[in-house]
Amino acid sequence: MKYPSKIIKQKQTNIEFANRGMNLENDLNSTNEYYLEKNIAIIHKKPTPIKLVKISFDNEKNAKINEAYFQSPSTTDYNGIYQGAYLDFEAKETKTKNFPLANINKHQIFHLNKIIEHKGIAFLIVRFSKINETYLIKGEDFIEFVNANTRKSIPYSYFKEKCFLIKENYLPRLDYIKIVQSLYFGGNYEKNN
Amino acid sequence: MKYPSKIIKQKQTNIEFANRGMNLENDLNSTNEYYLEKNIAIIHKKPTPIKLVKISFDNEKNAKINEAYFQSPSTTDYNGIYQGAYLDFEAKETKTKNFPLANINKHQIFHLNKIIEHKGIAFLIVRFSKINETYLIKGEDFIEFVNANTRKSIPYSYFKEKCFLIKENYLPRLDYIKIVQSLYFGGNYEKNN
Repeated sequence: MKYPSKIIKQKQTNIEFANRGMNLENDLNSTNEYYLEKNIAIIHKKPTPIKLVKISFDNEKNAKINEAYFQSPSTTDYNGIYQGAYLDFEAKETKTKNFPLANINKHQIFHLNKIIEHKGIAFLIVRFSKINETYLIKGEDFIEFVNANTRKSIPYSYFKEKCFLIKENYLPRLDYIKIVQSLYFGGNYEKNN
Repeated sequence: MKYPSKIIKQKQTNIEFANRGMNLENDLNSTNEYYLEKNIAIIHKKPTPIKLVKISFDNEKNAKINEAYFQSPSTTDYNGIYQGAYLDFEAKETKTKNFPLANINKHQIFHLNKIIEHKGIAFLIVRFSKINETYLIKGEDFIEFVNANTRKSIPYSYFKEKCFLIKENYLPRLDYIKIVQSLYFGGNYEKNN
């Protein structure tokens, strides 16, 4: 049986889109659930912003959205509280060797900058999915890199040298709070340990 | 011209639903924009959580949502940072004389409790839309009321006596940070002033 090439292309795109970034998101969600259960930190993923176009109503309680579109986020995906402090981060997964800066929009950079200015804890979690390594990069370092460089991506070597490898475990999956504790609340965290 | 009664009913419901709670939300959004511009605080409304059912794709960048439903939020609507502290609140508008507790779900009460436990600032902003009065009720007081009472609503008199009237201004529209500053960072705030 022959399919028109257009249909096949569309199917492949669906699968790609559906899986994109889901592994890191799932790992972070399960980590945040663990932190909540163990009373370590209260961190939630914000819902994806959606522009509603058409809504129908059976009654006031049963609204059905018939047409809507994903919106570009103006802030980061995750925020919450740890040790009384405000904590805010964006998480991105990339299949490329280096981290493309196009992954983070200018509103998000503005937002991270603002959080730092207001004495919050801001960072990015970046996963290189091909080699399965996940790094925490401090917001301060990320913004410094963006301002000092005309490059369109942050090289993997930068992460290797200056950022903090988050080891994968069974529970919690990605213990990034350990790194936050050491970076912002004292104690030493050995890079890439 | 005659309309079938069913269609008219549906139209009215639409209008009611669309306007419900929008005034308070607009006032808070414009207040938060003012705080952002003036560098006073960084507070955002979280997007409404939506359960996606059907999505179609023109290509990877043009996803169209064809069927989706509103979900009940598991946290509060607003959070952010003020003076380095984590701040979290829910905002509700009511047309009734007293404030029905059914407006706040148990996940949200759990969440407010957790925020207080982790030394964050948690509160509710409640507007009585018929008399156009907006109050800040501390999370601690709200939870104490819920735990100590079997009532299904918080009487207006409770707000009048124990909570903090947020005066309406031109700019910022609802200066709730002034009350937060006085309640959590020292200084006196005269009730209902």
